[in-house]
Formats: sequence, C-alpha cells, structure tokens
Amino acid sequence: MQDSVEIGMGRTARRTFTLDDISLVPSRRTRSSRDVSTAWQIDAYRFEIPLLTHPTDAVSSPKVITEVGRLGGLGVLDAEGLWARHADPEKELARLLGGAEEEEAEGIIDGSVEVLQDLYSTPVDPDLLTQTIRDLKASGQTVAVRVSPQNAATLTPIVVAAGIDLLVIQGTIVSAEHVHRGGEPLNLKNFISDQDVPVIVGGCTNFQTATHLMRTGAAGVIVGYGSGSTTTTDAVLGIDVPMATAICDAAAARRAYLDETGGRYVHVIADGDLQTSSDVIKAVACGADAVMLGEPLTSAEEVPGEGFYWVSTAAHPKLPRGHVSYTGTHDVPLEALLHGPATGSLGDTNIFGALKRAMAKTGYNDLKDFQKVGLTVRA
Amino acid sequence: MQDSVEIGMGRTARRTFTLDDISLVPSRRTRSSRDVSTAWQIDAYRFEIPLLTHPTDAVSSPKVITEVGRLGGLGVLDAEGLWARHADPEKELARLLGGAEEEEAEGIIDGSVEVLQDLYSTPVDPDLLTQTIRDLKASGQTVAVRVSPQNAATLTPIVVAAGIDLLVIQGTIVSAEHVHRGGEPLNLKNFISDQDVPVIVGGCTNFQTATHLMRTGAAGVIVGYGSGSTTTTDAVLGIDVPMATAICDAAAARRAYLDETGGRYVHVIADGDLQTSSDVIKAVACGADAVMLGEPLTSAEEVPGEGFYWVSTAAHPKLPRGHVSYTGTHDVPLEALLHGPATGSLGDTNIFGALKRAMAKTGYNDLKDFQKVGLTVRA
Amino acid sequence: MQDSVEIGMGRTARRTFTLDDISLVPSRRTRSSRDVSTAWQIDAYRFEIPLLTHPTDAVSSPKVITEVGRLGGLGVLDAEGLWARHADPEKELARLLGGAEEEEAEGIIDGSVEVLQDLYSTPVDPDLLTQTIRDLKASGQTVAVRVSPQNAATLTPIVVAAGIDLLVIQGTIVSAEHVHRGGEPLNLKNFISDQDVPVIVGGCTNFQTATHLMRTGAAGVIVGYGSGSTTTTDAVLGIDVPMATAICDAAAARRAYLDETGGRYVHVIADGDLQTSSDVIKAVACGADAVMLGEPLTSAEEVPGEGFYWVSTAAHPKLPRGHVSYTGTHDVPLEALLHGPATGSLGDTNIFGALKRAMAKTGYNDLKDFQKVGLTVRA
Amino acid sequence: MQDSVEIGMGRTARRTFTLDDISLVPSRRTRSSRDVSTAWQIDAYRFEIPLLTHPTDAVSSPKVITEVGRLGGLGVLDAEGLWARHADPEKELARLLGGAEEEEAEGIIDGSVEVLQDLYSTPVDPDLLTQTIRDLKASGQTVAVRVSPQNAATLTPIVVAAGIDLLVIQGTIVSAEHVHRGGEPLNLKNFISDQDVPVIVGGCTNFQTATHLMRTGAAGVIVGYGSGSTTTTDAVLGIDVPMATAICDAAAARRAYLDETGGRYVHVIADGDLQTSSDVIKAVACGADAVMLGEPLTSAEEVPGEGFYWVSTAAHPKLPRGHVSYTGTHDVPLEALLHGPATGSLGDTNIFGALKRAMAKTGYNDLKDFQKVGLTVRA
Repeated sequence: MQDSVEIGMGRTARRTFTLDDISLVPSRRTRSSRDVSTAWQIDAYRFEIPLLTHPTDAVSSPKVITEVGRLGGLGVLDAEGLWARHADPEKELARLLGGAEEEEAEGIIDGSVEVLQDLYSTPVDPDLLTQTIRDLKASGQTVAVRVSPQNAATLTPIVVAAGIDLLVIQGTIVSAEHVHRGGEPLNLKNFISDQDVPVIVGGCTNFQTATHLMRTGAAGVIVGYGSGSTTTTDAVLGIDVPMATAICDAAAARRAYLDETGGRYVHVIADGDLQTSSDVIKAVACGADAVMLGEPLTSAEEVPGEGFYWVSTAAHPKLPRGHVSYTGTHDVPLEALLHGPATGSLGDTNIFGALKRAMAKTGYNDLKDFQKVGLTVRA
Repeated sequence: MQDSVEIGMGRTARRTFTLDDISLVPSRRTRSSRDVSTAWQIDAYRFEIPLLTHPTDAVSSPKVITEVGRLGGLGVLDAEGLWARHADPEKELARLLGGAEEEEAEGIIDGSVEVLQDLYSTPVDPDLLTQTIRDLKASGQTVAVRVSPQNAATLTPIVVAAGIDLLVIQGTIVSAEHVHRGGEPLNLKNFISDQDVPVIVGGCTNFQTATHLMRTGAAGVIVGYGSGSTTTTDAVLGIDVPMATAICDAAAARRAYLDETGGRYVHVIADGDLQTSSDVIKAVACGADAVMLGEPLTSAEEVPGEGFYWVSTAAHPKLPRGHVSYTGTHDVPLEALLHGPATGSLGDTNIFGALKRAMAKTGYNDLKDFQKVGLTVRA
Repeated sequence: MQDSVEIGMGRTARRTFTLDDISLVPSRRTRSSRDVSTAWQIDAYRFEIPLLTHPTDAVSSPKVITEVGRLGGLGVLDAEGLWARHADPEKELARLLGGAEEEEAEGIIDGSVEVLQDLYSTPVDPDLLTQTIRDLKASGQTVAVRVSPQNAATLTPIVVAAGIDLLVIQGTIVSAEHVHRGGEPLNLKNFISDQDVPVIVGGCTNFQTATHLMRTGAAGVIVGYGSGSTTTTDAVLGIDVPMATAICDAAAARRAYLDETGGRYVHVIADGDLQTSSDVIKAVACGADAVMLGEPLTSAEEVPGEGFYWVSTAAHPKLPRGHVSYTGTHDVPLEALLHGPATGSLGDTNIFGALKRAMAKTGYNDLKDFQKVGLTVRA
Repeated sequence: MQDSVEIGMGRTARRTFTLDDISLVPSRRTRSSRDVSTAWQIDAYRFEIPLLTHPTDAVSSPKVITEVGRLGGLGVLDAEGLWARHADPEKELARLLGGAEEEEAEGIIDGSVEVLQDLYSTPVDPDLLTQTIRDLKASGQTVAVRVSPQNAATLTPIVVAAGIDLLVIQGTIVSAEHVHRGGEPLNLKNFISDQDVPVIVGGCTNFQTATHLMRTGAAGVIVGYGSGSTTTTDAVLGIDVPMATAICDAAAARRAYLDETGGRYVHVIADGDLQTSSDVIKAVACGADAVMLGEPLTSAEEVPGEGFYWVSTAAHPKLPRGHVSYTGTHDVPLEALLHGPATGSLGDTNIFGALKRAMAKTGYNDLKDFQKVGLTVRA
C-alpha cells in the first residue's frame, strides 16, 4: 500500500497510523530483562528512564517532580501553572476538584471549564515562580520548566535566573515560522541560540516542522500535543496527530538533520496518546528517545489533581479544547506505577518495567537499539 | 491505493471518504487568529462567515434568519415551510413538539412522522409567503429563499416579486436532466437563465452532476442532501454521500468549469454530515466555499424547533427518509454558537471562531487559501 | 486495490465485500418514480416485484404465500416444514412461540432450539403436503415449493403431482458435485433435466458453483444461505458469505453462461443479509434479478411466527446453526411492508416503493438497467 | 494489496491478519460429513481429533486430561502448576475461586492476581509431580507434560523419569537464541536432541523463529501464546500475535524446513484466539496441524476452574499479563463440547463436529487436505 490516497478528484491525503494500529514483532532472539537498559541522556543530563512529565498542574506539582526525579525521570514544572500564580495552589485546586467531582458524579462533561478559566486568569507572579524553582533546586535534582511560546520572552529570564537546568518551550502546535501582521513574534532560532540552558521545544506534528525546530538549536523536539481522553482538539479544530506516523516522521527528521549537521543528535520526545505501558513501548519502537506522560500519572497517589486530569488548552478563555475529567485511580505509589511491582494486569502500572521486558522479549539491549524493532499493522 | 476496487468479478466500486475519515495537517507556518479572515462573497453579497442555514423549519424561522444575518451569515427561508403554510406556525410547531417530546422520553423513533406529514399537507399560501419575505426584507438584510425543483416554476415568481435577493432551488438529489415520460419537467438551464436573482442549486453528489448544475448558470451549487443524525436516506434508498469525496469532486468540477468558461467561479456549498466546528473546517479544507448548517443550530436558544430537528424528506407522505429527534440543547445564544466564547470544549459552540483558529494554526490567511491545507486519512 | 491479499507467507485470500460496505452513486440523470418498473419474469411467470419469500415456517405460511401472490411477489412453501408435518401447525407453533417469548424476556438465546428440533423430527406427511399445495393452487396463484437436496428425490414427485408451478431445491450450501463414498447422491444435472417444471436451485456462494448450477438447466440460482441476525453459520463453521461480492460473482457467471450457451439467461436470486429496503436495492444493484426475503417479513401482521424468526438449520439435531429470535414487530400490514405507505423512516416498510424511488433517483427505468448503477465503497 | 505499509517516513510495518478477519470459501464440491476424518498423528501418537489442552490449571487437571484422552485428544499437564506444588490443589483452587467469584460479581478485574501470585509461589514438589504423572500413566493414556524454558533443565529429568510420552517446552514467547549476560541459558537445540521423548516447543510468532525452533529437532512447534479474553500481553507489552498471519508463516516455515531436510515434517500447533469452532476451523485452514485450547474448555462441567480461566503469565510476581475471569458456563459435558450434540448454536459446543462439517461443506477429506481451502478477507 502506498502512503497516499485520492480522497476525491485531484485531492490526495496521506495515510497515517496511530499507536493503536501497530504492534511489535518479536525477533529471532530473546534476552534477559536484567541485561536491558532504559537509560536516556539529553545534553549533560542522564536519566534511568526516558520519562518527562507533561507540564500540567494535574500531575506536575513540585512534590511529584521531586519524586519523579528520585525514580529516575524528569518532572517538568509549568511556569504558567498554579504554583506560579497562586500563593496557596492547593486551596485553588480544592475549589476546582470539589466541583469536578460533583459534575463527574452527574455525568457532566465541560462543567469545570469555567472554574479552570478563572484559576488561570490570575497573572503569573515572578516571585512565586522563582521561589518554586529555587525550592526544587534545593532538593538537588535536575529542574526543567515549561514556558509557552507567547510568554517565552518574558518568563525565560526569570526561570533561568532562578536556576533551571532545562527549558521547555511548549505550545499545542508550534511552528518555527509564526507569521504575525504588525507584531514581533518569537523568533525561535534567535531565542534558543541566546540561551545558556539546553532547550526542548514543541509540539510539532510532521517532518518539516520537526526539521525546522531542530535547526533552532534545540536539544529536543516534542512530537504531538499531549492528546488524550480529556483533549478535544480533534473535535474542535479537525487537527488530529496520528502518533505512530508523527513519531516516525520526527525520527526521519532527526536522521536527516544528523546527516545535515554531520552529527548533531536532537532528541525526539513523544507527547500524545500514551495511556499504557504498551503505548510507551510502541512510541519508542517508532523512534522516540523519550516520552512525556500526563494522564497515566493520575493513578499515582502523589498527584495534586487527585485523579482528575486537564491540559492547559482546557483553560482557554474563548475556545477551550479539553476538559477536567477523572482519568486515574489516585491510589498507586508513583514508584509502583513506574517501576512495579504492577498492581494489576492492564499495563497501567510498572510502565517502565514493561518497557524493559518488551525490549528483552524482542531481543534488544537499549532504547536506541529498540527503535529498530519490527512492526506490524492490523489489516 | 487506487480509487477503485473490484467488489466482485467484473464489478468495481469507487473508494470514497467521509469527513470523519480525514484530518488536517499543520504546515510549517502558524499565524495569529486575528490576521485570519473567514469572509465569503457570492455574487454581490458578502458575508463575514461562510454560513447558510439549512432551509428547515426546525431552525430557519424568520427570527433566526434575522439573527444569523446580524451575525454575518445567510439564513435561508423554506418557501414551502410552515411560515408559508400556516398563519400561526408557532401553534403548529407546539403540536409537533409536544408529541415529539413524549416519544423522545419513551425512546420512540419515527413517532412524529404522521404529525409532520399532516403539518406539511396544508398547501402553501402565496400571501403568507409574500408577507414573511417582506417582513424579512424590512429588517434590512439579504434574503434567501428555497423552493423545491417540483414547485420552482410556481413559487419562484411569487418569491421574486416579494423581493428576495438570492434563490435556492434545493431537492434531496437533483440532476440537470430529469427524465419524465409525458410531462414537462423543470429545465434548470432555461429556468435559471430566466432569473434576475442569483441562484444556488442542489444537492448534487458527484463531479458530473456538479458540472451540469454549474452549466445552468447557477451562482452556487450545493453538495450533499443535508444528511445527519435524523436522516435515513442511506437506510431507505442505499444512497449515501461520502462528503469528503463529494466536496473534493465538486471543487474539481469548479476548477474544470472555471477553465471551460475562462473564469466563471461557481461556489461550492457543503450540506451534509456537518455537526461540529471540526466538520465545518474539514469541509472548507476539502474545497467548500461555504457550509449549510441545520442540526448544529438546534443548540441555539433562538431556534423554533426547541432542540428538535427534522428535514423536509421526513414529511414525505409515502416514503419518509428522516424523523423528528432531539439533537441540540436549545440553550446557547446563537452568537456564542457561531462566534463564541465557547460554552464547552466539544466543538459545538464558537464554530467559526474554531474555523479561524484552525486556519491560523495551519498557517492560512483566508478561506480560498485554506482549501489547500494538507490532509491525512486514518489507516 | 487488488482483489487478493497475502495474509501470511505463501497464503493469499480474496478481498470481499458485504452489502453494508457499498452505496449507490446517483448518475447525471433522474427520473420520475411513476416511470419506473420493478417487474420480474422467470420462465413463463411474471411478477410485479422481484420478491420470493424464504421458505421458513416463520414467515411462509399458506396464508402469507397467498397474500404475497396478491401483492405481486412469489411465496415459497417449505415442503419439509410444519404444514407438511403436522395436521395442526398453528398448535405446534404456539408451543414454540410461548417458550421463545419467555426466553426472549429473560435474554436467553438458543433456548428454543430443543423445541424446534422436536417440531421438525415429526416426519413429512405426503398427504398433508399434497393438500396444502392443492389449497394454494385453488386460490389461483403461482405455487412454488422448496425441497432440500437430501429429500429432493423422494418429495419432488409428490409436489409435482400436487400441481406446483416452480420447484426450489435449496440447502444451506449446495454444490453441483456432492461426493459421497458408497452412496448415490443427487445428480442435480440429471435430476433437473428430468423435471417438467422450472427449477430454482441454491444456495451457492461463488462463481464456480454458480456456473455449475446454471449448467444443470436451472431457471434460477440462489446466492447465499439466508444469513441474518438469527443465523450462526459464520460462528459455527467459519463460512460467511460476503453478499455484495457473491452476487457480483454470480452475475458474472450468468454473463459467462449466457455467452457459453448463446443466450440462456439464468436468474440470480439473492438470499442473505437483506434487512432493509436499502439492502434489497444494493442486491439488485450488484446484479441480482430478484431477492428472497425472510427476516424482514417478520414485521408483517400476517406472519405465522408472530415476529419470531428462524431458519431450517436452526433445527439441526446435532449442530444447529441458528436460533429462534424476535426480529420483527408483527404489526404492519404486508401490503404496507412491501408497497407502502411506509409506517416509519427506517427502510423496513414500503420496501419495493423504496426500490422504485432509488431507481428513479439514480436514473434507471427497469431492474436490468439498474444493475449497472454506479457503486462506491467506504474507505 | 502488498504486505507492507509505510507507517511513517522510512518506517514500514507488515500488514497482518487475525482469524476474525478471514472466512472460508466453499469449493465447487461438497462431501458427506461421515466421509471426513479429523485424525491427527504426531510421532508415534495418533489422535482422533487435533486437540491439545492448554497447560493451565484452569482446565488441565488430571481428571480432564484423562477424559480428553478418552475423547480422542491430548491433555497437557503443567509441570509447574498446582498439581505439582500443592498436596491438595482443590483446596487451593477453592480459595482462589471463592475470591474470584466475589470480584466478578462486583465487576472487579485483576482482583485475584494477588492470590494467584501466592498460589504459584509455593515451589514445585518433584514427588507430587512424579506421582501425578504416574497416576495419569496408570490410566493407560498418552501423557504430555509442559515445562517452562527457564525450568526445563531441572524438571525434564523428573518428568521423563516419571514416564511421560511427550514433552512440551512452552513459554509466552520463546526464541531459539536466548541471550543472557553471564549466565548459561537453555540451548534448545542441544537440549532437545538429548531427549528420548518427542518434544513440542513454543510459542513462536513468526517465520524465522518457527524455522529456528524446527531446527532444534522438535516434533511440533506452537504458534501464539494462548491469547484470549483474560490475557493482556498486548496492553502491557505491545506484542500482539495476529494468529491468521502467524499460522500461515509457521506453515511456510514447515514447508521450507521439509524441503531443507528432504522430508522432516514438523507439526504446527495453534495456541491463541481460539474461542469457537469457527476459530478452530480457520486455524486449520491457515495451516495448523492441531490446536491447543484453553478458554473454550471452561464451559465443560469437568474443569477444575469452575468456569474461571487464567494463564500462567497472570501469576507473574512483578508484571502479570492476564487475570482470572469467568469465561465459560461450566455446565456442558466435555464430550458434548468436543463431539456434540451441540447444546446451542453459537459454535461453543460440538467443536470438532463443526470442524468435520466445515470440511464436508467445503469439500475436503482430511486435515492436511483442508489446509488448502480457499480464504477470503473482509474489505
């Protein structure tokens, strides 16, 4: 089958694939799980598991970020989230979650959007933001913070001054060429080359944009916009990222850029449609160097959202593209969720233990090697 | 993949696509929503949003038509609807809706068909029709009225005399060549060339018929027959219009006819399977110049059907192909439904704000430009 | 797309299509319903609608057969059904239906199989069979009777002597070459050429068997085995007939045989997956000359099964492949079900009125012409 | 259609098929069921039906194994199951099933995993194992026992000494080349050639591994890992075996190896996605010489699991990939389940009677011949 179909006279569309469409093929070799490494290194920072947390207040509180660091991953704080806007973010969360719980019980979707919009209408307080980052730094771990493209120019000096190790510039869909009549939008290339900290940027959805973002000098590029059961960008905007295809395309951009630069390796980080260990495994199999998880972490007992999840676009004042929904059980220690032992058989706990075992069962030693595993698609 | 498959020995079928099958691909560029225009102009009439209302009494009352006009779109009155048949259409509607509500509660489909058939058996009253049009004209807006192909010859002189600006000749499936033994069917070409007002005609479903309808001199051609959750033409007649393919084909006919005439541009108006902002966006992406919306408007608090929807074929005396069902919430101001702010995140409000944002996110300035956006299909 | 796929190394499978997979394409022409004919003629017998009833006791009682005759179709009596086994078949049916109703209420499938097996274990009584046929003949209509291949040799002389006009030899899956060690199976070719009445034979499922059956001298060949919501041949035997493909193949066999014989036209009768008017329309569109309906007739108020349906394989003593289930409303006059007016909009009433309208809407005059209508398949 | 698709730039995946995707095509010939043989012979052992039981304690108790032997199949005892670990396995099962029943009632999945883990943490007792095998031998039947690859070296001498006829070495996914740093994994080739009893080994999932396993000298190779409604390997590890493709590939390996060795025929045994007679039939049609059934046997009144089913991976201490669920009715005599008469029409009883009839209906005499039956796939 070719990768393009004629949907009508003179109009073609590319055929794309989701992670659900694909499966892994065991090779002729198997290995022992103990011999497998899931280590991931970006710039000077090495992690035992290729995990970033999605920078949403539903999961990425300072407490969770610290625990994720202890467990070998990288938590990402939202510089535009509640911990940067409110002195007592727990109180604000309680207000949101109380209402959300009632609506969940009554089967109402979208009911909490208004509260959410209100919570995020309080402006970011540079002092609060600085203090939150300093507290994280004080715990001795690698600190990564996310800013939006719109606010990157204003907030980056503040977070860098506060001592972050990695900067994440992340919007729903980002391009390297934002056209804006009569204004001065962010020039990503200039902006990133001016930074002293390594930058991760995204989300992108195709080869061309991935290539452009790599050329900005970023250390990592995010693929996808964190789509999940609470996001509605597809229903609202008709834009839907088929993650298997998008990751493969970004990996192709990485290879092309590696060749173009004679050796600069830009990391591909998948952020979207990752719910189970199986999804994480397939994302790496398609070429991701690391994954960004949000919704699956809502089953951890440490998360601030108490099992509820939302993304930043859900708080948009005029066109929200997501809602607040109960997506996790909020009762599993983060350690069990990431490293096991699994508390069930559905792929939602021991996520990185499962990654290790899948690599072993299909005969691969490390993540880079595992990106070559054979794939199948259902007829 | 080719566009034709062998379904059995010596019998091929064309492979077709619905709007649900496709998604948009962001390009390498993004824009600001403020720089995007959704303006649409047909003949001498310019609209801020590319919207026509489907000419059904469930939504297109004089009151709604006036409000749609104020909000930048074009309401279309049904010259064969209740406002042309009954002196007190609200009373008749109340009779229908009372019964429909009871049946909805009991889970009965089809129960209101009989009342519907009765409501539409009262003949059209030329005086009522004339008065309704004059009242609309008096409000100062562009007035469009729909007649059926069967009654076009009789009703057109009346509605033209009453002062309409645009004539819509619309049946479920219309051809430019209606064969009729021993009678004198409507010759669309002669009929349309005789009119002084611009004519929109449809619905058609393929390249050939679209081309023929363009050659009648029409200013616009409607693609589709307004299919939605209350229509059953597919189950009754086996005729199902795959809207993505049908719109692309009509757009191809538009290009061919533009070339054939050395520059006459006939507008393609999509009418079918449009439920969310995402569907509207995809219809334009496939090549539609404007969309005709019915069912999604039933969430507006101004609509006469109070959330219930039906199309004219549902009232057919011998072979109804639709029913009366509750399809909308009837509680959102039409302004919020069309222009926002959205009251939720599901793509059913702020429909044209979403169109603007999708154009911005994928990097296009105006509707014509946006017809070139990249498309994907799911495997 | 080609019609063959490799499902594994060295093993291909043919790609096939159901009626649900396809839709009709309107042509550039439309016609008036009044100018359309649905007449069908086989041998010397002409019918106003191309309808045979499936020979099951759930629908084809003498009373229904007479009414179907009056309405322009052809009812088929099962020579091995209750009217040939029991002096008071209504009493036996009451026993079955009482139990079936209870089980339906409790959500039990398969519960009535035992009663069914018992009902059909009583041997066929030649006198009862003869009398039933004579009574039908006395009403002045064309009489068609079905025998199974196993009992054709024994029962055919009886039913022919009783005066039938058409013989139907029908088993689930019939071949022209039944291999049987140490026995003498029915040689269809010799058997059929010995008959003075025209013979319809089936069901077949592919080109090769259709061709072989045509060469037996049959006037008509049945495609399919009457699959529907109560049959389980696919779950039990793995044999599933994709009706769109199977009908197209049989039509191809008809063309090849027409050429081979220099003009003998053998009718193709579709029997399977026909639930709505849309299915009937698509079957003819694929090349069927007539359709055999069972399950959709259970909505008629005249049927003996009172809305319950079963096929003869459901009564198999060791391996039943069907069950007794409530499939129809049992409250619509047969006349409305076949000719309208429709009592709803779901395609289950006014079935042949819908066929007429679909032919008109797509621009065809008669059934033979309509077999050329354009088809689409969903992506 | 080709067997490979591009899922993203520079990344292809093979298109694969499940048993659900395919159907059988009747040939031009039919046969009598009485003339059909389902006999299967491996090494010196001949069976009337091509059945092995899956070695799980949910179904393969000594009592069931004896009954399956009497009915013409081959039961397989798990040498690492409860009968080898506990003196009173029925008591242990009662503990498990009591809890499982409660959880089933409350809709809890995964609840029994902990009990399961505990049950299987008791070490295997060589004396218990030896006694269980001797008791089976005493009943005069062919005795087959399964060991895991990990424990094959330790347990094989014990079970061989106890007198088994056939050895089954079975893990979820087995390769002929297990790489293990600083340890000495099982060399299957050396190990198998050292055995005096014929060995069946698996499960494998593709041509390459099947070929390697055949080269170990095994008499039979298992395809699949016993996937069913209680297994979650796909959700946990992203590894999903499309059984139709996998069986075809193993059959291709069998042909290639037959040629390579000038005549050694290694049997292909399908173990996965086999729920109904239809699935068994399709597995043989794809090229399986025999099938391994687990879940469908839970409807037998003789099974120890009382209708509950689980596989050995469900008891994994850190990453369980399955759970304990009620999958069968536990009320049909095993004889009726395998040989009929069927107690319903859904393909879950008279499984091998159905196989016989499918072979007869499609015109094939024996299993080897039936592997050539025509196949179709749904569009």
